[in-house]
Amino acid sequence: MKVPTSIEWKDGKLIILNQQKLPHEIEYLELENIEDVFDAIVTLKVRGAPAIGITAAYGLAHAAQLYKTDQLDKFRQHLKRDFRYLAGSRPTAVNLFWALERIVKAGEKACSVNEAKTVILEEAIKIHVEDEETCRQIGEHALSLLKDVTNVITICNAGSIATAKYGTALAPFHLGIERGKKFHVYSCETRPVLQGSRLTVWELQQSGVDVTLITDSMAAHTIHSKGIEAIIVGADRIATNGDTANKIGTLGLAILAKNFNIPFYVAAPTSTFDLSISSGEEIPIEERHAEEVTHIGGVPVAPGNTNVYNPAFDVTPAEYITAIITEKGIIHPNFNENIKSLFGELVKEGERS
Amino acid sequence: MKVPTSIEWKDGKLIILNQQKLPHEIEYLELENIEDVFDAIVTLKVRGAPAIGITAAYGLAHAAQLYKTDQLDKFRQHLKRDFRYLAGSRPTAVNLFWALERIVKAGEKACSVNEAKTVILEEAIKIHVEDEETCRQIGEHALSLLKDVTNVITICNAGSIATAKYGTALAPFHLGIERGKKFHVYSCETRPVLQGSRLTVWELQQSGVDVTLITDSMAAHTIHSKGIEAIIVGADRIATNGDTANKIGTLGLAILAKNFNIPFYVAAPTSTFDLSISSGEEIPIEERHAEEVTHIGGVPVAPGNTNVYNPAFDVTPAEYITAIITEKGIIHPNFNENIKSLFGELVKEGERS
Repeated sequence: MKVPTSIEWKDGKLIILNQQKLPHEIEYLELENIEDVFDAIVTLKVRGAPAIGITAAYGLAHAAQLYKTDQLDKFRQHLKRDFRYLAGSRPTAVNLFWALERIVKAGEKACSVNEAKTVILEEAIKIHVEDEETCRQIGEHALSLLKDVTNVITICNAGSIATAKYGTALAPFHLGIERGKKFHVYSCETRPVLQGSRLTVWELQQSGVDVTLITDSMAAHTIHSKGIEAIIVGADRIATNGDTANKIGTLGLAILAKNFNIPFYVAAPTSTFDLSISSGEEIPIEERHAEEVTHIGGVPVAPGNTNVYNPAFDVTPAEYITAIITEKGIIHPNFNENIKSLFGELVKEGERS
Repeated sequence: MKVPTSIEWKDGKLIILNQQKLPHEIEYLELENIEDVFDAIVTLKVRGAPAIGITAAYGLAHAAQLYKTDQLDKFRQHLKRDFRYLAGSRPTAVNLFWALERIVKAGEKACSVNEAKTVILEEAIKIHVEDEETCRQIGEHALSLLKDVTNVITICNAGSIATAKYGTALAPFHLGIERGKKFHVYSCETRPVLQGSRLTVWELQQSGVDVTLITDSMAAHTIHSKGIEAIIVGADRIATNGDTANKIGTLGLAILAKNFNIPFYVAAPTSTFDLSISSGEEIPIEERHAEEVTHIGGVPVAPGNTNVYNPAFDVTPAEYITAIITEKGIIHPNFNENIKSLFGELVKEGERS
């Protein structure tokens, strides 16, 4: 039993676990150039906001190693071009921008192209290492909230393979099993792309966590019939007021939690917060191809000419959220105040260090 | 453009549309004996509470034509044996019992085996003809409730092919299009068996109704982003207090409707009511095979040894239901009183006629 991971930087090579092939094949892919990285993000070979950020950061730093110039301004032009290219791969995931910006900013301090190449690669490695620690801390905080809870529902895969290690929403289950704390996790299959059945079930099985698969439509009945005590999900972007964009289906779960009077937790690193937007209404919702809904594993399940609405995310208003679990601590309502005050402290902390 | 139907009794043969093959193949099957009928119900070749009832009634009446006895008590023994056999095919669908009981009761009045064979076949045809009229009336009542509504969500297939014709929840859309009343129907795909994408989308397309497919997980976001004004669903069994068993996922939609303050309608014939039970807690919930969740169209979507919870139905408490639309009229809360009073009137009506 071992917590699985999905990204490795080794001997100057960026290697990822191809999440498109899970759970039937465990395939590792080398991303050789920036087009490979773009493609891996768009086609969901790598997915999960932190893992996308880490992969994009390595991808940008790796690409920059090969720029054939020793003029810093040209180097930075190339870096910005590739930054914009990778930033366009998934419009909703804020960690992508955040990680890519860290790489570009790291490069800005350098006095030579050689130094820039070194520091941006170090920055990518730092993003990777920090994320594992971040997830471990999220898991610790989540465990404290879930200490009297056994039966939990989750959606999508806010898991170890969506991050450096441990995951966000799944971190308490991985940490829990190491300490003899047993959960029974009900994993929503997460249509249309089935990250729940393909990834979360597989990942929790690898760690030895007790996991049961349900369809998304079974959540309400399962809460009632199986005594679900909490729902915990990840996040793709969190606004200043706490509104949370996450995998389509999350909003429905949040409304169920409120209806059944059980807590609804969002687990996400502070890098998921976007303080440039005041509410979830400003979050763009990516719409994806109809084939994700009309076909499953290549098999058509609807008439050929079917109209489809396929939003990839929804926005859960802060009023439905019991607490947001970050690596810096647990944020309770009033989110507007408490998010600003946490980030105010983080800014001060940053200034001190 | 034509409202599709799924059951035909012609020249002494029972022919059904194989709903397992939809929407890719339009295959009609002859059910030659009672084992064929049992198999067709269990494997969902015929589905939808009224269609199951009609098919079972024909199946029992057809089987009885071949009993090789002219002793009435032996004939009735055979009929009861086959009644019990077919009644065991789907435990949750109350129409199945109701239709089979009508066949058995029709046989009880006969004075000879020959007469019994004739009257039970007539009874099956009567159940079929009555159901079409019932659905048309449900559609009329539903149209009156939905007269200012355009955007509607439905789940599963409470459709024409689930009944004799028109359907229950889908009846207003079929009748509406005949009269120039346009709806935009969002069909939940209805995991695990995908009756929404496979059947409802196909059926509404046949009639020319504007239909858009969503996954079940998209309902909450769609209500918000597409201005959904009402949700309408069918029912498999309704208790005396209005609690309604229907396809898994219905309860979640009902909770969403309450949360977003839009009406939630149940459309069902009076034969769906089970006055022997006072509340939904007494309704048995059928659990089906794990493979329905772990495989889609034969393709595995989860690890091989996955634990699955697969309830086929859920129970929506009456408090979430705005109105129940029957062929005899619209039932509003207080359901407990109004259901009893409607059925009291029906009993009196029956005594008068």
